[in-house]
Amino acid sequence: MALTDETPVTARSTDPLGTVIPSTVPTHWYNLAADLPEPVPPHLHPGTREPLGPEDLAPLFPAALIAQEVSTERYVEIPQTVREIYALWRPSPLIRAARLERAIGTQARIYYKYEGVSPVGSHKPNTAVAQAYYNAVEGITRLTTETGAGQWGASLSMACALLGLTCEVWQVRASYDAKPYRRFQMETYGSVCHPSPSDLTEAGRAILAEHPDTTGSLGMAISEAVEAAVKDPGAHYSLGSVLNHVMLHQSVIGQEVLVQLADAGERQADTVFGCAGGGSNLAGLTFPLIGQNLRDGTTTRVVACEPAACPSLTQGEYRYDHGDVAGLTPLLKMHTLGKDFVPPSIHAGGLRYHGMAPMVSHAVNLGLMEAVAVDQDTAFAAGVEFARAEGIIPAPESTHAVAAALAHARSVTEPEVVVIGLSGNGVLDLPAYSSYV
Amino acid sequence: MALTDETPVTARSTDPLGTVIPSTVPTHWYNLAADLPEPVPPHLHPGTREPLGPEDLAPLFPAALIAQEVSTERYVEIPQTVREIYALWRPSPLIRAARLERAIGTQARIYYKYEGVSPVGSHKPNTAVAQAYYNAVEGITRLTTETGAGQWGASLSMACALLGLTCEVWQVRASYDAKPYRRFQMETYGSVCHPSPSDLTEAGRAILAEHPDTTGSLGMAISEAVEAAVKDPGAHYSLGSVLNHVMLHQSVIGQEVLVQLADAGERQADTVFGCAGGGSNLAGLTFPLIGQNLRDGTTTRVVACEPAACPSLTQGEYRYDHGDVAGLTPLLKMHTLGKDFVPPSIHAGGLRYHGMAPMVSHAVNLGLMEAVAVDQDTAFAAGVEFARAEGIIPAPESTHAVAAALAHARSVTEPEVVVIGLSGNGVLDLPAYSSYV
Repeated sequence: MALTDETPVTARSTDPLGTVIPSTVPTHWYNLAADLPEPVPPHLHPGTREPLGPEDLAPLFPAALIAQEVSTERYVEIPQTVREIYALWRPSPLIRAARLERAIGTQARIYYKYEGVSPVGSHKPNTAVAQAYYNAVEGITRLTTETGAGQWGASLSMACALLGLTCEVWQVRASYDAKPYRRFQMETYGSVCHPSPSDLTEAGRAILAEHPDTTGSLGMAISEAVEAAVKDPGAHYSLGSVLNHVMLHQSVIGQEVLVQLADAGERQADTVFGCAGGGSNLAGLTFPLIGQNLRDGTTTRVVACEPAACPSLTQGEYRYDHGDVAGLTPLLKMHTLGKDFVPPSIHAGGLRYHGMAPMVSHAVNLGLMEAVAVDQDTAFAAGVEFARAEGIIPAPESTHAVAAALAHARSVTEPEVVVIGLSGNGVLDLPAYSSYV
Repeated sequence: MALTDETPVTARSTDPLGTVIPSTVPTHWYNLAADLPEPVPPHLHPGTREPLGPEDLAPLFPAALIAQEVSTERYVEIPQTVREIYALWRPSPLIRAARLERAIGTQARIYYKYEGVSPVGSHKPNTAVAQAYYNAVEGITRLTTETGAGQWGASLSMACALLGLTCEVWQVRASYDAKPYRRFQMETYGSVCHPSPSDLTEAGRAILAEHPDTTGSLGMAISEAVEAAVKDPGAHYSLGSVLNHVMLHQSVIGQEVLVQLADAGERQADTVFGCAGGGSNLAGLTFPLIGQNLRDGTTTRVVACEPAACPSLTQGEYRYDHGDVAGLTPLLKMHTLGKDFVPPSIHAGGLRYHGMAPMVSHAVNLGLMEAVAVDQDTAFAAGVEFARAEGIIPAPESTHAVAAALAHARSVTEPEVVVIGLSGNGVLDLPAYSSYV
């Protein structure tokens, strides 16, 4: 750890560098709330069941993010420093899957939007960088979070390294022990990663006292990360999905798709397939296209692709529920399988969540997007087919979108434009592919 | 393996798709042999010590690659099908490392050329795709190769999947057992990967009879892959580095750098740092710049960065030596530590080779590039520093170039342009980073 001295310090790290940013990197985030025919239902206080006020969130989040959580502004300017970091890998490519089209013999023109070019290989840094930035400019020096398989923990760790914050991650012990690569990634970025439950928090100690052999859960890890943030005035907590401000930050994906499709000479996307776990990749990819439908009369069909083993949109109820197992978080209006739902241990760890982002749930409820469930074998089969035609081995999460898109593309009888959201690559999920192959 | 039926068939896979390729993807490979003041010394037959003729190589390689091996044409046209595959990830980005510049406080303008955006995360597919293509159009249906840590085996597997060939890889048993991710990658692409030595070849059986507990070596794996190719008229062998045609294919890297630097408003690269193992990444990055020096009077300084633990350029002799341990391959004029040199088990597996590509060795001998040796801890320290400033965790191989570049950038007293070749990312090398951190 001799290099910690060389980590850029906070004061310098949030200043813009003044570098030339390609005009193809979006200047603003797009907020679907501005174009919805009905407002997004508010989050409720878990005790009073009244709508949350800014003061309820202030111990955990900086003012800028709390404002974004309830904003109905259509466009929110992206700070220059955040754009400069985005420009390290954005715009992410939109690629014509011509070899895949030939392999399956479809009339569809298939494009995929590939978020795997980010340094951690997924879309998660789009919001991690924004969240770290707003915390840093507000004087926060430390962020805490939880992570399951580790994609979010790695993304926030990277963002904190670039913006001069320290980062402390509670990782579900089962993943901490079984999948160490993401932890190594966090540590390389300078973060500290604890297995959860840990003896570092009251919540963790209480759990361990009762269940000394537990392998942990996201709900437990959330409790520990939140407690650690609340107890340190210099710290805040960070969440990688579900919340409205996360959907906002991810909108760079879909905004780029609109520009890139036009550059490719396409009038509109006819059908878009995105995988749906907590909802952030799906929202980022599709909300700008849904907004265009609402404002400009395009007719893009949006399909959320969720795992059959954790079908919150296709099987869940649309009601207020907690985001965590312990019931400590605010009540969110969402499609949910119930906070006590225990998803089977499917390979696509990023899709194992009992609920769905309120904005995505609302959009489905309003009929602005559809949902399908895809079983795991079908998803992996599509992932392998994609890899052998296009080279990229998709993340297990992304294969759900690939599978639904392939089924659709095989059935079309007229030319149309299909867009697949490839939320990340599967490099650290190769054991799962191996089990399948 | 139910998906094998869906693998694109050979006859269709080598036809161009007719897609629009960005003009930023090079149309020709650049051949430094055309601009060298003295010709590259020929490869010699291991028995006669006479220059190799095309007939000596015909059992292993297609005619087009044999012709490229001795070509002195300055530009060789890239087939349309190869360009279409390149376009899936090329041009790879040239990124201004502005955050790193700020972190170290240098007057240099630092750029890095990032090959980690390829589907397997390194520069290797640049030649794998070309080699698979020429074999496929010549009617070959199966390629064999060896691999150590697995980067080359994964790259050739991907190329074969895209071009409708089957691929069989002999992987050094030590890596096969200890580092399974690359094997999972090969299998996902549909390849078969054997631990070497295996009982599938005479060479392998002979070795196992004498050393039943051996963990293998690249030399043994080469013998097995070559034997398998020679015995099957439908098969050829493929090599991922060292040979002249490999250097040729990798030239897309440096050609893109020249265009991208000009686009960024830079007159020339002043100093370029590339890591040197077998030499293919280094040659690809720097030969187009050396050619420009020779033709156009630019004054780019080129620095080959090799590991102190395997210092073929800085400590080796420049003489004819075999490429393999058994002494079966042609004699190549190169900087070598001797074919029996056993490099220590350093983390940068791609740099553990006793010799150096003949074209790179020749360029060093002519004074067209310099060489420095970097020790492993210095390299990892630079890799961590780079990751915390720029987000990307470099491949352990690439960190040698990063380390030399950082030392240089810290010492400059006037503005200059520094280019670092980032041959790949370190996602599958995170355990090595973990050991260091």
